Amino acid sequence: MTTLQPRDPAFDARVRASFEKQRFMSTIGARLTHLAPGEVDLELVPRDDLSQQHGFLHAGVLAALADSACGYAALSLMPAGAAVLSAEFKINLLAPAAGERIVARGRVIKSGRTLTVCSADVVAVREGGEVVVAHMVGTMMTVEGRGLSD
Amino acid sequence: MTTLQPRDPAFDARVRASFEKQRFMSTIGARLTHLAPGEVDLELVPRDDLSQQHGFLHAGVLAALADSACGYAALSLMPAGAAVLSAEFKINLLAPAAGERIVARGRVIKSGRTLTVCSADVVAVREGGEVVVAHMVGTMMTVEGRGLSD
Amino acid sequence: MTTLQPRDPAFDARVRASFEKQRFMSTIGARLTHLAPGEVDLELVPRDDLSQQHGFLHAGVLAALADSACGYAALSLMPAGAAVLSAEFKINLLAPAAGERIVARGRVIKSGRTLTVCSADVVAVREGGEVVVAHMVGTMMTVEGRGLSD
Amino acid sequence: MTTLQPRDPAFDARVRASFEKQRFMSTIGARLTHLAPGEVDLELVPRDDLSQQHGFLHAGVLAALADSACGYAALSLMPAGAAVLSAEFKINLLAPAAGERIVARGRVIKSGRTLTVCSADVVAVREGGEVVVAHMVGTMMTVEGRGLSD
Repeated sequence: MTTLQPRDPAFDARVRASFEKQRFMSTIGARLTHLAPGEVDLELVPRDDLSQQHGFLHAGVLAALADSACGYAALSLMPAGAAVLSAEFKINLLAPAAGERIVARGRVIKSGRTLTVCSADVVAVREGGEVVVAHMVGTMMTVEGRGLSD
Repeated sequence: MTTLQPRDPAFDARVRASFEKQRFMSTIGARLTHLAPGEVDLELVPRDDLSQQHGFLHAGVLAALADSACGYAALSLMPAGAAVLSAEFKINLLAPAAGERIVARGRVIKSGRTLTVCSADVVAVREGGEVVVAHMVGTMMTVEGRGLSD
Repeated sequence: MTTLQPRDPAFDARVRASFEKQRFMSTIGARLTHLAPGEVDLELVPRDDLSQQHGFLHAGVLAALADSACGYAALSLMPAGAAVLSAEFKINLLAPAAGERIVARGRVIKSGRTLTVCSADVVAVREGGEVVVAHMVGTMMTVEGRGLSD
Repeated sequence: MTTLQPRDPAFDARVRASFEKQRFMSTIGARLTHLAPGEVDLELVPRDDLSQQHGFLHAGVLAALADSACGYAALSLMPAGAAVLSAEFKINLLAPAAGERIVARGRVIKSGRTLTVCSADVVAVREGGEVVVAHMVGTMMTVEGRGLSD
């Protein structure tokens, strides 16, 4: 039942095109740095205008990055013509998010016909090392025939 | 055990001052529109630069708004000198987020010494009515003596 | 989109018949005490063989009761012939679970074609009053045509 | 900050003694089959009296097994005299739970002073292979000085 076989051979171009349409990813400076079937990494550089009251990255920015990483990891396995929507996600905040770069690594745990379950580790890269700052588990939904583009 | 009594009589000014320091809330155009013990409403007007690939508000924006609403609802009940951190939250996305305004209503479900559990309904206001577009439940942590400001 | 209209006029008998088939509900002594469209209450009396290490009800028992309450609240709105499966749930434990009776009140938040989002408050009844001991939010899935009975 | 060093050299005996006190684990036939710092495996054999309406294991049984595996993985790293309580958990149900044995593998993701975040994979062993049937992420709390035994 679980498969990491892309159902759409053009998954790479399709995921990248959809990511480009997420205006909010551009607003927070996120870039797509890794894409393979069932795997998407997104990263950004912390900025003052993304911070919470103590100067760390706002949990909502981490959630946005991890949610998009999960959503596109899921979309990479979906059939051509399907769109992806987040049904729900949970995120645990594990350490203050600061560093040179923040990377969210979305990975598919289970790819079903309607629902795809993904996890994402969010890490802060600093001084050459990595600290896991958050962990997400989310449920992504395959939507077909509702007039939504990819 | 549960109490909606503020432990800090100056809770109102303290919550507002902390909210002003959340640079990311300013970035997404969020305003604090209601504050009472255990209750905080935040709202924003949807903008293109906050959107996902289909033109709706990105789930990460909804999560950010609801997380701050929950966090400040929790902080309103915490003792003077304590800081609030999000330990974890879960959000269910219920309907596409579009409308004239988006309001996140954070409410304390249980206020404990260390952990405060909150929920938030996120609604889209359109044509005079409201649609619930997301629901969050989260756990906020009281942090004392770690050198974090409010 | 949201509706609390039962799609199956025979929902009452159907939900009760399915509940009777859940052997585990009988094992923990759960009874169905309220059923209306989108609403199911289940309750049980705490017993030593359901306890965790401190003598309170095990969180897994609370989760089981709340999950079935949510699942049957969802099933009460589903079309005839559909089966319900839990896709995921989250539960926050708010207070030690002890008392004369434990009641889980499952309520539909949003009823969609494929996914139904529910919440459940779990309360302990003691000395005539109630204490909320847990809160669940979960996603239930409508399954049709896979050969599953109700 | 993260450490998988047990703070209590007697962690092994302490975890096993606490597990023996969880009457509900005995009720569902769970056994502790692996214990190391930050790691606990629990397993059980499916029985009819643990089933839901389609004959599979009830999601609440999976949640109970995974919650105890997470809780004891967390307790294995806690200081002597501390008790563990589940603050919250989320579980995704990935496949019908049936097989010769069900194993929940609790692992600590982040061990903090007050909160420990854990995950658990729940697998069904059948015909020599394994299928992941559920995935949990949960937050466990270190409780000291409230008169709770281990």
